[in-house]
Amino acid sequence: MIAIIGAGPTGIGLGYLLEQLNVKDYMIYERETVGESFYTWPKETKLITPSFNGHGFGLLDLNAIMPDSSPAFTLKQEHINGERYGEYLQLIQSQFEINVTEGCEIEAIEPQDKGFLLKSNQGDIEADHVILACGEFNTPKRLFDYGIHYADVETWKDIEGERIIIGSGESAMDALINLNKQGERVLLIHPEKSLVLNHHDPSQTISPYTKERLLSVNPELIRVINNKRVTNISFDGTMYDVTLDDGEVFSTTNEPITCTGFHTVPPVFQQLFEMENGLAKLTELDASTKFPGLYLCGPGVRQSDVIFCFIYKFRQRFLVVIEDILKSMGIEVDEEVKSDYIRQNMYLTDLSCCNTECQC
Amino acid sequence: MIAIIGAGPTGIGLGYLLEQLNVKDYMIYERETVGESFYTWPKETKLITPSFNGHGFGLLDLNAIMPDSSPAFTLKQEHINGERYGEYLQLIQSQFEINVTEGCEIEAIEPQDKGFLLKSNQGDIEADHVILACGEFNTPKRLFDYGIHYADVETWKDIEGERIIIGSGESAMDALINLNKQGERVLLIHPEKSLVLNHHDPSQTISPYTKERLLSVNPELIRVINNKRVTNISFDGTMYDVTLDDGEVFSTTNEPITCTGFHTVPPVFQQLFEMENGLAKLTELDASTKFPGLYLCGPGVRQSDVIFCFIYKFRQRFLVVIEDILKSMGIEVDEEVKSDYIRQNMYLTDLSCCNTECQC
Repeated sequence: MIAIIGAGPTGIGLGYLLEQLNVKDYMIYERETVGESFYTWPKETKLITPSFNGHGFGLLDLNAIMPDSSPAFTLKQEHINGERYGEYLQLIQSQFEINVTEGCEIEAIEPQDKGFLLKSNQGDIEADHVILACGEFNTPKRLFDYGIHYADVETWKDIEGERIIIGSGESAMDALINLNKQGERVLLIHPEKSLVLNHHDPSQTISPYTKERLLSVNPELIRVINNKRVTNISFDGTMYDVTLDDGEVFSTTNEPITCTGFHTVPPVFQQLFEMENGLAKLTELDASTKFPGLYLCGPGVRQSDVIFCFIYKFRQRFLVVIEDILKSMGIEVDEEVKSDYIRQNMYLTDLSCCNTECQC
Repeated sequence: MIAIIGAGPTGIGLGYLLEQLNVKDYMIYERETVGESFYTWPKETKLITPSFNGHGFGLLDLNAIMPDSSPAFTLKQEHINGERYGEYLQLIQSQFEINVTEGCEIEAIEPQDKGFLLKSNQGDIEADHVILACGEFNTPKRLFDYGIHYADVETWKDIEGERIIIGSGESAMDALINLNKQGERVLLIHPEKSLVLNHHDPSQTISPYTKERLLSVNPELIRVINNKRVTNISFDGTMYDVTLDDGEVFSTTNEPITCTGFHTVPPVFQQLFEMENGLAKLTELDASTKFPGLYLCGPGVRQSDVIFCFIYKFRQRFLVVIEDILKSMGIEVDEEVKSDYIRQNMYLTDLSCCNTECQC
């Protein structure tokens, strides 16, 4: 039995693939409901990768999780918000009758002599292989005692008054853009020398969508402090004190917004991997280096310098992982399915290509 | 000598390819300057295909014209306006030292016993092969005696007052969205049963970008008449009368906006092709069926039902055409260049894949 933990784009994408391969002995365990993380996004947040139905000409929608499909086509939108993407995942799950057990929280994964024992709120589950497909959004990195993490925001309309934003990535920029739109003053504090607005790999920089949105912010409402790390946020009942690494303190009555990122592997499962700087070390085929048979799929995957933190990237490893699992079971992957995945850029094994620099 | 007519994305993309292949005996003849058509777009118009630098993972920017490149990366934008895309083309032309003769208008192409004689405002030019790469924007279809064609609009700010818009394609929708944003009332008249908002091929429907923009128009300012063809626009010095095929007449003091499309082949060159319903019949390798050695490249290309009217589509035929020309000259295409084009989805020969329907 293959156990997949999490029914987001990774879990549902893997389930779809297994159905195509006619492998029925799998189950996706989902703590809440299919696509749950997306429903908890801030109401205003959209996928930063644009959807476009170019798959007829070999350019698969950046947010598709299966070949020959397009959220842009189905949802008639280019930048899809969390709720609609969650609905899209539910649609795929029901249309292709993908096995999901909802409301099942996996609390621990215990490696056995052979296979794994999963401890869940619905009892024990035995699995031969386990694929972690939890995503990142539901395990925010909370570095400080105070601060509203990006993941905690239901809607930016709730966030009133001048705010300190801590961070420099996509979520910090999104917070800044949304508060700016509401006319709120913002002080952005981040540790980079400057905001990284260009890099050939979109995972290392701000997306074109966000760069474009930044062009229309009102700069008079924004102050930026580069090159400073926040070391502490304290609260005395009235004021929040934000302390920087050089000792400077900024005081504010409004709780700061902390855009301090997400765990690439849920903390509860980190002891199953060799962790290094918050990242899981993986075999060439995305398995744990400590426990063969346990795989990581989704945005948390890293292979040396290659970062898979976009749907259009991590979907290219679905078949790599499934192929390895089936091989260990003596099952050959159906050639027709494999060629579909290859044709639609959903099967990436040669990672040397992934750091291509831009010519123009 | 290979003569290329037009220095837009098609001409510059072909020039780049020839440079890569070390073929130096070519010239791009451009009536005005590199990227000219884009500079004449309405100021507010943007490319409807979103740019994203996904080429490191096999997903080439939809608006790129060469492998391993990305306008999103270079311009730091997702939806690029005409002026910036024109600048982008100029950048490529100068960076790769692509041969262009500006200010050279080709007035006629005369097939000779062998090759072609091009009549231009700079004198006669002899060419062995000719590639028409004129694009469509600079040859609008003007079906009526009156009306401001979409191509004539410099900025929507110039267009004041309630307007009749004629058409149902991308340009009609863009006109509607821009006028709506300015608070102008619009009457949209078009011949379709309803606005075609979904089709698996983006060339047959409205783009996700435009669908999304349509979600935020103010519907109170818009009236739509489906299923009616405009047969005439007359003007008595005060009022414009727009006559429909059922005899109904709409009168307005403001000149109607005609979004009646563009010629796929400039009228002056149409006699060089077998034309059928306004489309050029082409060989399997995009040559004129009347004059071998004359090719059509760019948005006007059709192969049976396959429509190439997006950059991400028509760029896939650059190498197909160049390969055919070089073959006739006894030159083999460099395998390394070819494999780059194949790897980045820029070499499409099997057209059976292009009508893939969507699964989701």
